[in-house]
Amino acid sequence: MSTISIATAKEVFDLLRDDLAAIEREFTRQSASPVEVITDIASYLIAGGGKRIRPLLLLLSAKALGCESHSRIRLGAVVEMLHTATLVHDDIIDEADSRRGRPSSNTKWGNSKCVLAGDWLYMQSFQTALEERNFRVLDLLISLTQQMVEGELLQIQKLGHLINEEEYFDLIYRKTACLFQVSMQLGAVVSSQAGENGEYAFDSQLGEYGRNLGLAFQIVDDVLDLTATEEVLGKPVASDLREGKATLAVIHALERGTGAEREQIRTVLADRSFQRVSHPQILEILHRHGSIDYAMDTACAYAEAARQSIAELPASDARRALMWVPGFVTSRDR
Amino acid sequence: MSTISIATAKEVFDLLRDDLAAIEREFTRQSASPVEVITDIASYLIAGGGKRIRPLLLLLSAKALGCESHSRIRLGAVVEMLHTATLVHDDIIDEADSRRGRPSSNTKWGNSKCVLAGDWLYMQSFQTALEERNFRVLDLLISLTQQMVEGELLQIQKLGHLINEEEYFDLIYRKTACLFQVSMQLGAVVSSQAGENGEYAFDSQLGEYGRNLGLAFQIVDDVLDLTATEEVLGKPVASDLREGKATLAVIHALERGTGAEREQIRTVLADRSFQRVSHPQILEILHRHGSIDYAMDTACAYAEAARQSIAELPASDARRALMWVPGFVTSRDR
Repeated sequence: MSTISIATAKEVFDLLRDDLAAIEREFTRQSASPVEVITDIASYLIAGGGKRIRPLLLLLSAKALGCESHSRIRLGAVVEMLHTATLVHDDIIDEADSRRGRPSSNTKWGNSKCVLAGDWLYMQSFQTALEERNFRVLDLLISLTQQMVEGELLQIQKLGHLINEEEYFDLIYRKTACLFQVSMQLGAVVSSQAGENGEYAFDSQLGEYGRNLGLAFQIVDDVLDLTATEEVLGKPVASDLREGKATLAVIHALERGTGAEREQIRTVLADRSFQRVSHPQILEILHRHGSIDYAMDTACAYAEAARQSIAELPASDARRALMWVPGFVTSRDR
Repeated sequence: MSTISIATAKEVFDLLRDDLAAIEREFTRQSASPVEVITDIASYLIAGGGKRIRPLLLLLSAKALGCESHSRIRLGAVVEMLHTATLVHDDIIDEADSRRGRPSSNTKWGNSKCVLAGDWLYMQSFQTALEERNFRVLDLLISLTQQMVEGELLQIQKLGHLINEEEYFDLIYRKTACLFQVSMQLGAVVSSQAGENGEYAFDSQLGEYGRNLGLAFQIVDDVLDLTATEEVLGKPVASDLREGKATLAVIHALERGTGAEREQIRTVLADRSFQRVSHPQILEILHRHGSIDYAMDTACAYAEAARQSIAELPASDARRALMWVPGFVTSRDR
């Protein structure tokens, strides 16, 4: 990380320090249930780390439009809680043993309780969102959730199969970019009154920013999964391939590789293991066709598109922070 | 079933025939997803039977107040879809093989897809409810869902343990009566404008009716599980005891039985099987203490309370039907 971005990271953090702390307090309030095991699981999940990037985006979006109301705190907590709910159900589906370096909730509490804990977190986030008394907020959150759930099902169907770029972008939109987009849009919704046509100022521009940033974020995530070391990443590498998931660089190589190379990639995806073809062999194919560079270039193009999306936003510290985030996302190494 | 109630059952059905058919069409519309497997699972579940008692209650509630709007159809579909969503997740939790005489969805599609299909059904029902543009509708549905989910978690915690009547009533309220109550309340909400204090006419009376009826319904369900034959019930008998669940008659016997009798019941609950103590032995204990009669008397008292709750409702065919339903619920044999 360069000295410039360290300075800016601190700047962004300083700008949002109080709001992020308020969101953490909101989590504590919202994890409380009359049923003790729910409070236990919810606290474990919500307190258990996470980069809080979705609340951060919502806060920056709201701040860029001058919003000072409590709504930004409340909805910042909502988007993180919704994200957490999807992770709980994903861990059941992926039979994950760990998440963010700790035992996954299904390992600690079993699948049954975690199905219900996930359901509860969904409801708690809608319950909290309902306090806003704004239908636009609910429209955004509920169709978002439905898109994410559909995306997970699509992902299951495509495991082990070759997919094309269009399918890949649909999957990562649903997995990541959609919630980034809605987080940004909610920032716009809490910052002003709806116009005569029901639209909020900067709603679509901020949403576009979120979508582009989310795509860049997920492409980089997928590249790191292929190229980083387990030491740096803090989790096993190439887990996507071992789960039968083809990501952007792999799709690029599939479209350009020789018949033999295609066959090697296909083997790993179908086997969901590196037993017959090794991880270094796959990396060699990707590097040979410039596929890693292609994926990173694509991520950088989306990062740049994110910046362009908010070109018309009035100057402010929050806008400056939003201009910095895409570069941070594409230059991270974990 | 007496001739009088057969006549009345036909009357009730005739009264609601068109509305119930419209709700079935609404289901088809709502099961459609761009993701094929969701449409498959949703159609399988929603088309797969069920007594449609929740939509029926909502329709009678709305009709008793003279509602003619499409809202009653839309929300009738919503309450059944929400009910279906809870069943999908319950089947995963109970590792059920069958449901309503067919393979359960988790048997057909596996747990992973069914976790997501359940999530999708929840979202689809909220999405549809959102079309009403009425916060009261959403408040009712979302806190209802949260209460049901909490109830399932409470149930898991209490499996194999002795519980008291208070705990039993809390569990069956969350499991059944809560959704009956909300179905009736939604009938009130779609039938008039909110008053100055935000209340809807007959909201609390109709809600009380639903709560009382739901408690009666579940008590009878639990008695039938103990006393009916597999032939009549269409599913294995005494499944509650074999799952470690103490229901009202059992709790009654536990409080009145000798030390030896208590021990026999405790053994079945802890073993979750009839290997050491047989089902007829348990039934003998229950009959000796009049526990089955006690449970049925309690159900009938709730049925009567349901009728009392709507004493002030203006006379109509729908009110007459609502007066008939509690007797039907307590006299059924399956």
